[in-house]
Amino acid sequence: MSGTVYLVGAGPGAADLLTLRGARLLGEAEIVFHDALVPAEILALAPRAACIAVGKRCGRYATAQRFINKQLADAARKHRVVVRLKGGDPMLFGRAHEEISYLRSQGIHVEVVPGVTAALAASAELAVSLTQRGRSRSVAFVTPRVGVGEAPSNWLQATLAADTAVIYMGAGDAATITAALIAAGKPAQTPVAIVTSVSLPEAHTAYGTLAELPHLVARVGGAPALMLIGEIYGRALDKAVQPERCATA
Amino acid sequence: MSGTVYLVGAGPGAADLLTLRGARLLGEAEIVFHDALVPAEILALAPRAACIAVGKRCGRYATAQRFINKQLADAARKHRVVVRLKGGDPMLFGRAHEEISYLRSQGIHVEVVPGVTAALAASAELAVSLTQRGRSRSVAFVTPRVGVGEAPSNWLQATLAADTAVIYMGAGDAATITAALIAAGKPAQTPVAIVTSVSLPEAHTAYGTLAELPHLVARVGGAPALMLIGEIYGRALDKAVQPERCATA
Repeated sequence: MSGTVYLVGAGPGAADLLTLRGARLLGEAEIVFHDALVPAEILALAPRAACIAVGKRCGRYATAQRFINKQLADAARKHRVVVRLKGGDPMLFGRAHEEISYLRSQGIHVEVVPGVTAALAASAELAVSLTQRGRSRSVAFVTPRVGVGEAPSNWLQATLAADTAVIYMGAGDAATITAALIAAGKPAQTPVAIVTSVSLPEAHTAYGTLAELPHLVARVGGAPALMLIGEIYGRALDKAVQPERCATA
Repeated sequence: MSGTVYLVGAGPGAADLLTLRGARLLGEAEIVFHDALVPAEILALAPRAACIAVGKRCGRYATAQRFINKQLADAARKHRVVVRLKGGDPMLFGRAHEEISYLRSQGIHVEVVPGVTAALAASAELAVSLTQRGRSRSVAFVTPRVGVGEAPSNWLQATLAADTAVIYMGAGDAATITAALIAAGKPAQTPVAIVTSVSLPEAHTAYGTLAELPHLVARVGGAPALMLIGEIYGRALDKAVQPERCATA
C-alpha cells in the first residue's frame, strides 16, 4: 500500500490565494516537494512536513524531471500524504502531465488540487477583465518556445486569433516574441500590459503598445513578468493616465 | 466615505476550492451579493452577512446588470465590506468589467480576489494537464455566441488555432458549435472531453470525438458542462478504456 501524491496549485504567490483544500493538505502533509519559487509563507502551512525544493532550471530539465518523478514515488511508498506544490495551477504550464503519468505507471494514487493561475491574479491586479462583453470573448494562454529543440507549436496562431492573449514565461524572450507577432501581422500599436511579481507586495503593472513590450519588460529588470496583449488594455491605458477622473467622480 | 466592494471568485463549486482570502473576506462581509449557482456551503462562510442572490438570466441581461451595479454601489455607501461573489474567477467570463467600471465611476473602491476557474478544476478532475510538453503549448478559453445580437467574435478562430480549447457556457449550443468547428476545418475525429458539475460530488467526465460532442452533452441531461477539445484528450481516451492497466502496474 502506498500513500497519495497531491499535486497542489500554490497559486500566484500571495499565501492567502492558496485554496482552503490546499492549505488543509499542507497541514496534513508528511512531506512536501515544492518549486523553487513557492514562498516561505506557504510552506509554513506545512509544519509537520519535510520540505524539499525541486526547482528545475533551463537546460537541465529532462534529468531533473526524472529525478523528481522518482522522489515522489519513493515518498508515496513511505508516507500517507505527499504534497507536490507547484506555482499557479498544476495543469497550466505546470508540467503535471509527466508526474501524473509516471506515478500512475507505478500504481500510485494521484490527486490534483487546482490553483489560481497567474493570468487571473494579474487581471485582478490590473482590474481589467480578460473577457468583456462584445470586446473579448476568447482568451489564449500561451508559452512561446522561440528557440530550438522543441516541436513546432501554434502559440503564434493562437495569440493572433484570440481577442486577448496572455504569455507565460516569455519575458526573457520579449524582443523575439514581439518581432514574431508583428511579422505575423499583429499591429505594432496593439495595447499590452505587463504585471511583474503577480499578487506579491512588490507587484508592478505597466501599460503600453506591442512595439514597446520589450522596453516595458526591460524596465522591470528581470522580475518574473506576465505579458498580456489585446485591445482591452487600450481602454485601461487611458484610465492609467487619468486615475483622478475615476477616484473623484 | 464608502466601503470597498470585493469581487471574489467563488471557484468552480466545491467550497474548499475557495481561496483563503475569499474565505476571510466572507467572514468579514456585512453584505454578500452572489450568483445563483454559488453553493450554500460557501455562503455559510459569511455568517454576519445578508446574502442576496443576483443571478442573471438570459435575455434579461442588460436590465439585471444595471440593477446589480446600483445595488452594489448603494451597499458600499452603507457597509465597510461588501462582497460580490462570482462563480469561478471574476475576470474570466465573470462580467466583472461592467461592475468595476460602474463602481469606479461612482468613486467606490473595488478590489478583485481571483478564483479557480472551471477549466482548471475540470482538468484536475480529468487528471489531464491542459498543457503538455511538445503537445500542447497554447490553450484557448472561449465562449461562443452562436446566435444574434452580439458583435462578431473570433471564438472560432481561437478554438481552431490553439492546441487545446475549453468552451465555457456552450453546452446548450453543442450541436451548433460542433457543426461550426467541423465546417471550419477542425477534424471530426479530434478528441474531446466533457466535465459536468465540475468539482462537485456529482461531477461526471466523458471522452469522445468532436463529432460525438453533442451526443455526450445530451447524455448528461442539462447539467452544466465544460467542453474541452484537443489531441491531448486522445491519450486520455485510451487510458479511460483501460483503467486497470495503471492501477495494478
